[in-house]
Amino acid sequence: MRFHTRKWVKPEDLNPNGTLFGGRLLAWIDEEAALYTLIQLENKRIVTKFMSEINFKSSAKQGDIVELGIEVVNFGKTSLTLHCEARNKMTRETILTIDNIIMVNLGEDGKPTPHGKTKIEYVKDRLS
Amino acid sequence: MRFHTRKWVKPEDLNPNGTLFGGRLLAWIDEEAALYTLIQLENKRIVTKFMSEINFKSSAKQGDIVELGIEVVNFGKTSLTLHCEARNKMTRETILTIDNIIMVNLGEDGKPTPHGKTKIEYVKDRLS
Amino acid sequence: MRFHTRKWVKPEDLNPNGTLFGGRLLAWIDEEAALYTLIQLENKRIVTKFMSEINFKSSAKQGDIVELGIEVVNFGKTSLTLHCEARNKMTRETILTIDNIIMVNLGEDGKPTPHGKTKIEYVKDRLS
Amino acid sequence: MRFHTRKWVKPEDLNPNGTLFGGRLLAWIDEEAALYTLIQLENKRIVTKFMSEINFKSSAKQGDIVELGIEVVNFGKTSLTLHCEARNKMTRETILTIDNIIMVNLGEDGKPTPHGKTKIEYVKDRLS
Amino acid sequence: MRFHTRKWVKPEDLNPNGTLFGGRLLAWIDEEAALYTLIQLENKRIVTKFMSEINFKSSAKQGDIVELGIEVVNFGKTSLTLHCEARNKMTRETILTIDNIIMVNLGEDGKPTPHGKTKIEYVKDRLS
Amino acid sequence: MRFHTRKWVKPEDLNPNGTLFGGRLLAWIDEEAALYTLIQLENKRIVTKFMSEINFKSSAKQGDIVELGIEVVNFGKTSLTLHCEARNKMTRETILTIDNIIMVNLGEDGKPTPHGKTKIEYVKDRLS
Repeated sequence: MRFHTRKWVKPEDLNPNGTLFGGRLLAWIDEEAALYTLIQLENKRIVTKFMSEINFKSSAKQGDIVELGIEVVNFGKTSLTLHCEARNKMTRETILTIDNIIMVNLGEDGKPTPHGKTKIEYVKDRLS
Repeated sequence: MRFHTRKWVKPEDLNPNGTLFGGRLLAWIDEEAALYTLIQLENKRIVTKFMSEINFKSSAKQGDIVELGIEVVNFGKTSLTLHCEARNKMTRETILTIDNIIMVNLGEDGKPTPHGKTKIEYVKDRLS
Repeated sequence: MRFHTRKWVKPEDLNPNGTLFGGRLLAWIDEEAALYTLIQLENKRIVTKFMSEINFKSSAKQGDIVELGIEVVNFGKTSLTLHCEARNKMTRETILTIDNIIMVNLGEDGKPTPHGKTKIEYVKDRLS
Repeated sequence: MRFHTRKWVKPEDLNPNGTLFGGRLLAWIDEEAALYTLIQLENKRIVTKFMSEINFKSSAKQGDIVELGIEVVNFGKTSLTLHCEARNKMTRETILTIDNIIMVNLGEDGKPTPHGKTKIEYVKDRLS
Repeated sequence: MRFHTRKWVKPEDLNPNGTLFGGRLLAWIDEEAALYTLIQLENKRIVTKFMSEINFKSSAKQGDIVELGIEVVNFGKTSLTLHCEARNKMTRETILTIDNIIMVNLGEDGKPTPHGKTKIEYVKDRLS
Repeated sequence: MRFHTRKWVKPEDLNPNGTLFGGRLLAWIDEEAALYTLIQLENKRIVTKFMSEINFKSSAKQGDIVELGIEVVNFGKTSLTLHCEARNKMTRETILTIDNIIMVNLGEDGKPTPHGKTKIEYVKDRLS
């Protein structure tokens, strides 16, 4: 799994107990999944459709660095299934994993539409 | 199910497609679950431990009102299991449901500790 | 008075003295009044026109739960007058009250326009 | 009246109707009143105690510049009463006025305590 | 140099070390430069094009008041060059200075266009 | 140069012209530089001391993906000098570059202190 994004846990990210607010972490993950999908499908009209169960294995505290990793589990016809992990950058301790996040490709009418992709592509290859 | 909290979808809550950012909605739900748990267990040291799978059934757009409902599924010894629903206040359309959110009661040492509760209590009854 | 919304006081809501930032509380109340009005008048074009004097009776601190209550004082021809209270959910201590918040119903031209409502309605009754 | 602070109305400051969210404006004003009081009383332990009625005379839209003016109405023994105005920087149109905002000076015990000030002071005079 | 805007350092503005997050300060300065330019050039289509080197001379902590000063260095044909300083309002200690911030005036096509201004103007003179 | 972090341009990141707010971008870069330094120096007490001149070469709009790249220019005795680039992930167009960002390593007394590092290290090598 490759980790593409890092977050620094700041005071604005804490819950009242002084640890990383779980909702903030979920928002980071949802954004990362959307980003990754957008890059792979080359379409901005994508939505989160499903997340499999979420285990909060450990927490993070102010000043910690959280890194977010994504890998593709499956290319569906109109969807993309991702596996996600958030971990502590310095200790590599897992904070949370989600086995399947299903992202759906939408057409201009807002309905699921085939994306025509079957494997991971790198932007640099598209551009060259 | 009772709905205790309402949110107004403002520009700051949108994803770049102009619909409610899923991560924002997850953050709202996590906060609501924490609030509810804190009220029931009368302990501020509580954490989200698990969420069962999440189905994003519909979306919301700018200006919509989202209401968040919670009900207790089970009182464990050191935990509380909640069922959650987010729906559109005006149309009652379901936006998202999560069957089980497990919240854990922590002691001063940060470890799970019995909360001693077995049923829903209302703050007004405690105060009277 | 019914309390429809709850807020959890997080670090991002504090003033530099470590208590709930009054401006944040006012923003929560204004949003709640707008939400309530929108639901009653079934019109998204509504604005806050007036607030009567505001007494800050007590404060709140990190981790507290604030609940916001609204009740209708009067249905005007183009307006709705609300009474608002913010209180500590756990202790029921009043944090702030505002006797009259006047919300105005606007037409497509952005000018006050009759809303045709004379009493409180519940969304569930409209839908049934 | 002198205007000490300017705000640029950005997308994050809008309500769902696309005009400046009233709650955001109230938060800006409360911060400005606190700042002004802190500077005059040379004490960081200050709280907003009261606001007289608030008239929302006009609104603002994305890209507008709002400037906030404060002047002292009265030095009490443990308080300071301020008059506040928010207006559009470019057109000078008044957006909102609040005749009296009462700020209270607190001691280390969190209770009102005399501040010993009787007139406006300028920081530059204190430093010279 | 005149100081037009004040900011109160709140918990949400801190880095994990508990001092003012440098990125927040840069955002405040960029907004202030944009505001000032918009007022002078009477055009909302303006962008930051260049900042000369930035020296972070001192920091600020929670509860401090930061004031932002701007003065014009030069009126170019399609640009405006500003000098900026951020300082502690109470101690007058300099936090940061930027000698040159170049702001560019854009036309409706998004390209640099002459602004026709050659000297500082005050809004009150335009309005009278 | 390696790009470690990605950001999705959301409505809350825009200036009133509807393009990426420059101040937001500077805040992202400052956070990224701090993160990178913290990882290399294994010390959370680090501050941004200096940024060389900043050229805003292009902008970004809602829905774009911005990626942030950092590379080390020099290991000083108490500092670390970084080169930074922000670019559009999909087009690889450069948005902004900063040749030198000097980050300083602080001791417990808040003063510059030697960090003892002379070359880039990878967390995975430290942990193995």
